[in-house]
Amino acid sequence: MKKIITLGEVMLRLSPPGNQRFFQTHSFDVEFGGSEANVGASMAYWGMHVAHLTAFPDNEIGWAASGQLRRNGIDTRFVKLLPGRMGVYYLEQGAMQRSSQVIYDRYDSSFSNFDGKDLNWDEVFEGASWFHWSGITPALSKACAELTLTSLKEARKRGITVSGDLNYRSNLWKFGKEPHEVMPKLMELTNVIIAGTRDFKQCLNEDFKNFTEVKNMAFERFKDLQYIVKTDRISHSSSNNTISAILYGEKKTYSSKSYELTHIVDRVGTGDAFAGGLIYGLLHLKPKEAIEFAMAAGAIKHSVPGDVLLCSLQEINDLASGEAVGKIKR
Amino acid sequence: MKKIITLGEVMLRLSPPGNQRFFQTHSFDVEFGGSEANVGASMAYWGMHVAHLTAFPDNEIGWAASGQLRRNGIDTRFVKLLPGRMGVYYLEQGAMQRSSQVIYDRYDSSFSNFDGKDLNWDEVFEGASWFHWSGITPALSKACAELTLTSLKEARKRGITVSGDLNYRSNLWKFGKEPHEVMPKLMELTNVIIAGTRDFKQCLNEDFKNFTEVKNMAFERFKDLQYIVKTDRISHSSSNNTISAILYGEKKTYSSKSYELTHIVDRVGTGDAFAGGLIYGLLHLKPKEAIEFAMAAGAIKHSVPGDVLLCSLQEINDLASGEAVGKIKR
Amino acid sequence: MKKIITLGEVMLRLSPPGNQRFFQTHSFDVEFGGSEANVGASMAYWGMHVAHLTAFPDNEIGWAASGQLRRNGIDTRFVKLLPGRMGVYYLEQGAMQRSSQVIYDRYDSSFSNFDGKDLNWDEVFEGASWFHWSGITPALSKACAELTLTSLKEARKRGITVSGDLNYRSNLWKFGKEPHEVMPKLMELTNVIIAGTRDFKQCLNEDFKNFTEVKNMAFERFKDLQYIVKTDRISHSSSNNTISAILYGEKKTYSSKSYELTHIVDRVGTGDAFAGGLIYGLLHLKPKEAIEFAMAAGAIKHSVPGDVLLCSLQEINDLASGEAVGKIKR
Amino acid sequence: MKKIITLGEVMLRLSPPGNQRFFQTHSFDVEFGGSEANVGASMAYWGMHVAHLTAFPDNEIGWAASGQLRRNGIDTRFVKLLPGRMGVYYLEQGAMQRSSQVIYDRYDSSFSNFDGKDLNWDEVFEGASWFHWSGITPALSKACAELTLTSLKEARKRGITVSGDLNYRSNLWKFGKEPHEVMPKLMELTNVIIAGTRDFKQCLNEDFKNFTEVKNMAFERFKDLQYIVKTDRISHSSSNNTISAILYGEKKTYSSKSYELTHIVDRVGTGDAFAGGLIYGLLHLKPKEAIEFAMAAGAIKHSVPGDVLLCSLQEINDLASGEAVGKIKR
Amino acid sequence: MKKIITLGEVMLRLSPPGNQRFFQTHSFDVEFGGSEANVGASMAYWGMHVAHLTAFPDNEIGWAASGQLRRNGIDTRFVKLLPGRMGVYYLEQGAMQRSSQVIYDRYDSSFSNFDGKDLNWDEVFEGASWFHWSGITPALSKACAELTLTSLKEARKRGITVSGDLNYRSNLWKFGKEPHEVMPKLMELTNVIIAGTRDFKQCLNEDFKNFTEVKNMAFERFKDLQYIVKTDRISHSSSNNTISAILYGEKKTYSSKSYELTHIVDRVGTGDAFAGGLIYGLLHLKPKEAIEFAMAAGAIKHSVPGDVLLCSLQEINDLASGEAVGKIKR
Amino acid sequence: MKKIITLGEVMLRLSPPGNQRFFQTHSFDVEFGGSEANVGASMAYWGMHVAHLTAFPDNEIGWAASGQLRRNGIDTRFVKLLPGRMGVYYLEQGAMQRSSQVIYDRYDSSFSNFDGKDLNWDEVFEGASWFHWSGITPALSKACAELTLTSLKEARKRGITVSGDLNYRSNLWKFGKEPHEVMPKLMELTNVIIAGTRDFKQCLNEDFKNFTEVKNMAFERFKDLQYIVKTDRISHSSSNNTISAILYGEKKTYSSKSYELTHIVDRVGTGDAFAGGLIYGLLHLKPKEAIEFAMAAGAIKHSVPGDVLLCSLQEINDLASGEAVGKIKR
Repeated sequence: MKKIITLGEVMLRLSPPGNQRFFQTHSFDVEFGGSEANVGASMAYWGMHVAHLTAFPDNEIGWAASGQLRRNGIDTRFVKLLPGRMGVYYLEQGAMQRSSQVIYDRYDSSFSNFDGKDLNWDEVFEGASWFHWSGITPALSKACAELTLTSLKEARKRGITVSGDLNYRSNLWKFGKEPHEVMPKLMELTNVIIAGTRDFKQCLNEDFKNFTEVKNMAFERFKDLQYIVKTDRISHSSSNNTISAILYGEKKTYSSKSYELTHIVDRVGTGDAFAGGLIYGLLHLKPKEAIEFAMAAGAIKHSVPGDVLLCSLQEINDLASGEAVGKIKR
Repeated sequence: MKKIITLGEVMLRLSPPGNQRFFQTHSFDVEFGGSEANVGASMAYWGMHVAHLTAFPDNEIGWAASGQLRRNGIDTRFVKLLPGRMGVYYLEQGAMQRSSQVIYDRYDSSFSNFDGKDLNWDEVFEGASWFHWSGITPALSKACAELTLTSLKEARKRGITVSGDLNYRSNLWKFGKEPHEVMPKLMELTNVIIAGTRDFKQCLNEDFKNFTEVKNMAFERFKDLQYIVKTDRISHSSSNNTISAILYGEKKTYSSKSYELTHIVDRVGTGDAFAGGLIYGLLHLKPKEAIEFAMAAGAIKHSVPGDVLLCSLQEINDLASGEAVGKIKR
Repeated sequence: MKKIITLGEVMLRLSPPGNQRFFQTHSFDVEFGGSEANVGASMAYWGMHVAHLTAFPDNEIGWAASGQLRRNGIDTRFVKLLPGRMGVYYLEQGAMQRSSQVIYDRYDSSFSNFDGKDLNWDEVFEGASWFHWSGITPALSKACAELTLTSLKEARKRGITVSGDLNYRSNLWKFGKEPHEVMPKLMELTNVIIAGTRDFKQCLNEDFKNFTEVKNMAFERFKDLQYIVKTDRISHSSSNNTISAILYGEKKTYSSKSYELTHIVDRVGTGDAFAGGLIYGLLHLKPKEAIEFAMAAGAIKHSVPGDVLLCSLQEINDLASGEAVGKIKR
Repeated sequence: MKKIITLGEVMLRLSPPGNQRFFQTHSFDVEFGGSEANVGASMAYWGMHVAHLTAFPDNEIGWAASGQLRRNGIDTRFVKLLPGRMGVYYLEQGAMQRSSQVIYDRYDSSFSNFDGKDLNWDEVFEGASWFHWSGITPALSKACAELTLTSLKEARKRGITVSGDLNYRSNLWKFGKEPHEVMPKLMELTNVIIAGTRDFKQCLNEDFKNFTEVKNMAFERFKDLQYIVKTDRISHSSSNNTISAILYGEKKTYSSKSYELTHIVDRVGTGDAFAGGLIYGLLHLKPKEAIEFAMAAGAIKHSVPGDVLLCSLQEINDLASGEAVGKIKR
Repeated sequence: MKKIITLGEVMLRLSPPGNQRFFQTHSFDVEFGGSEANVGASMAYWGMHVAHLTAFPDNEIGWAASGQLRRNGIDTRFVKLLPGRMGVYYLEQGAMQRSSQVIYDRYDSSFSNFDGKDLNWDEVFEGASWFHWSGITPALSKACAELTLTSLKEARKRGITVSGDLNYRSNLWKFGKEPHEVMPKLMELTNVIIAGTRDFKQCLNEDFKNFTEVKNMAFERFKDLQYIVKTDRISHSSSNNTISAILYGEKKTYSSKSYELTHIVDRVGTGDAFAGGLIYGLLHLKPKEAIEFAMAAGAIKHSVPGDVLLCSLQEINDLASGEAVGKIKR
Repeated sequence: MKKIITLGEVMLRLSPPGNQRFFQTHSFDVEFGGSEANVGASMAYWGMHVAHLTAFPDNEIGWAASGQLRRNGIDTRFVKLLPGRMGVYYLEQGAMQRSSQVIYDRYDSSFSNFDGKDLNWDEVFEGASWFHWSGITPALSKACAELTLTSLKEARKRGITVSGDLNYRSNLWKFGKEPHEVMPKLMELTNVIIAGTRDFKQCLNEDFKNFTEVKNMAFERFKDLQYIVKTDRISHSSSNNTISAILYGEKKTYSSKSYELTHIVDRVGTGDAFAGGLIYGLLHLKPKEAIEFAMAAGAIKHSVPGDVLLCSLQEINDLASGEAVGKIKR
């Protein structure tokens, strides 16, 4: 059983039920989610050993967050309980021509003050095959940026493959550094980068004409880079998207099938499901199969409420291999 | 800030949750709604000053109705609490090929006995720019028909622009008068009429070959008429409609974009959202922009549960201007 | 008023609300359903006298099951309360490319031990026009297989028309007999068979090249056979199917319209709704009208949550005759 | 199996969930209830044959009401579907020092216009042992007052025992008659009267010093009277009551135990549960046992949500006989 | 109609439904509450004109908070929409021997950064009779402490009566000042102080042997003080308390009845309900009646879910005057 | 950190919400529970390392059960996924004089067929301080009886303290052995027995006059017995119990305080909470403190919904030490 380590904040997710707007709701559905833990949970559901590095406030809300990671099969030995507050995000599910809406309230959370100083990296990475991070963590605070860099160095020192989802978000990066002051060092330590043209632009503060230019630059500049992965999404409406993905090796390129997602249940976490599928695929499958598996994982997540892909290997393989879908399985 | 006055009944709306049928439900979702107050609430959400004229029973159900108007930003200074009962409508949401169904239980409600005699019209219309009524009110009772006429006269006396949604409903008009005995006088006092061919036929008890004939007749007969507005809807199923609208000035005609509404959440109140958008548009925009704004407001309402459009100006402008929709706004 | 008798197990149905997966749910919606009682309930809603033969455990869960049959208009005089357990099925509603999933827990239920020895067949069939069974019952246990045979003989002895939905399910038939040891005798006693090629193959343990071969064989072999009925379904996804049906007489064939079911609410019981519509149709209409009525009933069931079609004759006739659908009925 | 006939309106009951107030609720729990049908339902749960006479509007709300009677085991053969509206009552559950509150909206309901002219009394009363009415029905309308009188005459003509719960409510009796113009004739035809001093005062428009005076008057005046039954309730708060009852024969008096009801779940229908228990008791038990059974039935109803006592004979007998209560039954 | 001004933060309140613990919940009931707005809302329900001074973040959560104030009848003209975050408090309802638990997450909220600089005090206090503040506001931040002082000066300058609920909370006061550096100046400007011995000790940083000593000190030191009010509560368990209150004038003392609160629904906001009742009482009643009204208001709040007393004047007067409680009001 | 091993079945628990009866419910709240895992979960919440031995069906229901154990902090390394069905118990919460009711449907579950043959006992008991079993497991099946005996031998072989809750249930023991054929051998291997007189009688098939006789017999007969523990419960009603406990050493006896449990939320699992508290207490405290801690744990569980005590050490210590309870903790 492969062991995977993930690092990142997990927030309390508060959503009005169904299609209600924030203005009219009288209750919130409670979930916990965060990009990197979502990636990990998808793989834990497939039987892999996934340990997540994070911090929660040492109160009942933090305990519940930790319990929910465990429920999803994640090893929480390295979850720290600290003073402070729980990061929160409010999510309103869109429908039709109305967009989904997220209000972040994560500033000054326990995680954003987490420096990981008391983590024993030998214990953390013992037996691990893969480490996954995202561009959200270094954007949160100075402490988090440093923790990300440290964790990458510790991982690579031990020969562990590293994947990173650049995931540039303009409303973060408030702590005094620009992305290009932080990200390039992290990208150098990363073997598999998930990103689009815009992410590369923002993280490197450079301009690119198209993704080919990005790709050429990246394989030249980042010596340990094995793959760049890019997803494409067309949003016909909040309820209906088309998605596909491409896996770029330095020499070869592998394209996935395209999926029509005509009745979207929950778009949040679909990129994380894709990333989980990608890591699983690169660890167990050939590149072409890996990108198909990843895209099927990302596609089917759109049907599952919450942040986390809760689908079995068989369900994903059936979808990837074009097995009849939509029938009742008895 | 423009001030708008609206007049009409607000009912208790009782709906089985989700797609349940009346026969099988064990609870009702509670909303309050009525065509004209819905029109007002959409504009109150955009920051306009909207006061609604209506009456409720003086009990906790009526107080709750009044409270809900306030929550939606409506000025309830002119809401009267009277003896009697609350008007009710039962709404079953359709799906696919199954139609939505409404059972009205509004007979003899407090509003239907409301004659408005103790309204101080100077106070009501002080500072107002617009007055909106619909053909539902005069159809309810003799008292309501007279109140509508009085309110129109009082509005026009003060130079206030008047819009009316003819909204002919065959299951009303039980109090002893035919529509054509009541409606023409009201239409004469109206500057902006929202109606289709069938509404004109029923309200005037005349026949028309097509809408062009209607339009020519109307601008000739109703001297103060500035605009006629007509919406077109194709119901592919309860879940999927196509809509568009046309604004007819005496000389010029303005057509809106057409919207594919492929995953309808709640169709009720979409005409009211359109009317609210129209009034807002005619008060603030050029005619072409106004009809686009109105149609975008009507379209996006299909995604909001309840009777009332709860969407910001920016959301509607984004849709009207073709901004990318369906992405997650963070 | 026609009287119909149905026979079969009714199970407790436990479903996570909305689109939740089993893994994540914290509550189950409770329904009761079973193929043959579903068929009966659809007809009871249309005013027919339907009595169902079944057995429940003599505890509050069994009483509730019986009460729910009564609520749906079914005559429960012949429902037995026995020792034992309630059959259960867990249902997870799929969405998009994710399939719905059923976990059966019906082994050793009160019904599976029900031999019907104390049923008074004269009372059961007094005044009855039709008897309906399905291939699920004889697959459950030796007792149930024998009860099915007995009931068919008793029905045919009294000249009652018999319909059977072969409904082959591979995960049943665990009691020591193969389908072909049991089903042929039952099919001989059946006048209207609902089945596809695969059902015939499994029940007769023979191979057929296509349905024409099936049809020719059947009318030759089963002397009392009046109609074979076959439905065709294309599953684009869990949310979107296309369906149609064909009614084969020995000489003539009648095809229904095809329906696009683009926003499926609940697929379970749609075949039963079709069967209910078929029986109603064959009792009251001409063959072409009957298959159209049946297919409309089956189609509109996809919009109703739960196992049972709760739609009026008028709703189904409107759909079958192409009346405008999807408008709000006030 | 004894057969019981009951007569009366069944209303749609709409309650905010839990302890919410009308002003703050966003949903209503849906139940159906009415005094006499509640009495019948308690007995149907005990296996008696109970048929209820009533009328509902011929729409889905009325169909659901009828279905719910059937679910509760009531024979609905004599339920009529008429034009008109469903009677409604809004119920807010009190707690502690806050009273429960009922808002009636039953005026002009289908039942209030029901004259029962097309009832075939021979069919209705065939095989019946008992007929139960309450003082609510004659208070609703002229039609209902006449229907009550007719039904009583028809029952007594056939030698059927009649019980009546006088149940005086001041907010009814709006149709032009005073209680004393209507009730005495009905009381003369009644063998078992359930009432307190105030009920007798209002129904006879006479004054009584105490219940002894009432009792003496009643047995003298009403020649067919066999029993008067009176319950006593002390309301410490909405959550905590003490109750007991006395059964007065002309010669002998039987007192029940007193019950401390310290955590009331739902007080509505507790008098009806008592009446159901009384009828059952007088049909099957000695007077002392009957009043104990009735009071235990009334007491335990306070623990059951909704209008209807859903408790088995054994549960009630256990309580009446002082069996250990409050343990978990496994 | 008296006009009342209140000042203070309103938070989003998130509670697990029923008796669930934070650790196990999957949804939060959503309310909005804050001590001073709760005081105001109780009076608005009684028909008084109440305007609340506060600030919310300018997003949908803040808009909803403002809408909810309006629903409760509060004039929101002076509510500011600012950048920043919504203050949150998580509330777990206790039961029996388990305490209720509150987790505050209000640091750095929009309100805590609100300095009120752009309030027009002439507009705010026009026509006002009373101003109410609490010791929570000056404890939040330097800006809030200054705003409180300013508002008190502005109120007293205009001859408006001022009440203050000292409400000392040890987990606030984090901004660098001790209570005794801030509170005495505010108390000097207050006419009616609600507080117990501990509040006085903490706010003045002095020691007192008993409340008599407190009282004597207070009337001597605070020249404009008219009343001190103290409530006494015995917590038998989370579900069962006994409460009473005393109103101390300089010369005379008035004690309220004591209430047994044996089935508590929601304890939060009961002190605010008491304060609302007190202000109403002092404005409309004699002192003895005022303290009885206030205590009845505080007592009955324990039966209402949410932060706010939603009870009519009549309900409170009935309770205060010993009217029968706990009966069903029809 | 002490390590505890527990063994036993965990069932799916299905309960109607609130106080609803089985007959009337339309949904079930979903929990997972079983006596021994409940014991373990209480200790896991206090930070102890608890591993549970059990088996679930290898389907999504079983996966969810396992996930829920993890959420509650239990180490699930030794949970087996097998063919078969999930054991179920239906729970109806009583209220007032109405008893709670449990319907078991656990026959032939995956656990009942679990023989534990592939457990590596060295791994299971590595580092463990305590092993806990109950009399439910050997009552389920021959396989389970043998597994219990094996586990006890393996535990004692390694010097691990063993506690057993005799927990005699008459509706189990259906597999062909009487309790006295199985239990004595298990009791001999147990150091701490939790049981009352009736349990001893049934398990030994002997008669005892009183508990003193039981105690004397037990310490004489079972050489390794260190403590017998007995709880006493008086059920005033389903909502109100009084409980206390006694810890009997061979020489000394320790009695706990008695608790009035006046507003019971959920009685299920309270004995398990007590047992968890007892094990914790005997591992960390003196005997008198241990029995007080255990009884406080058992008492406070009555306030927590579900099978499992989710209360912190501090909450239990506060209760045991008489700290003020029922106040809001902020």
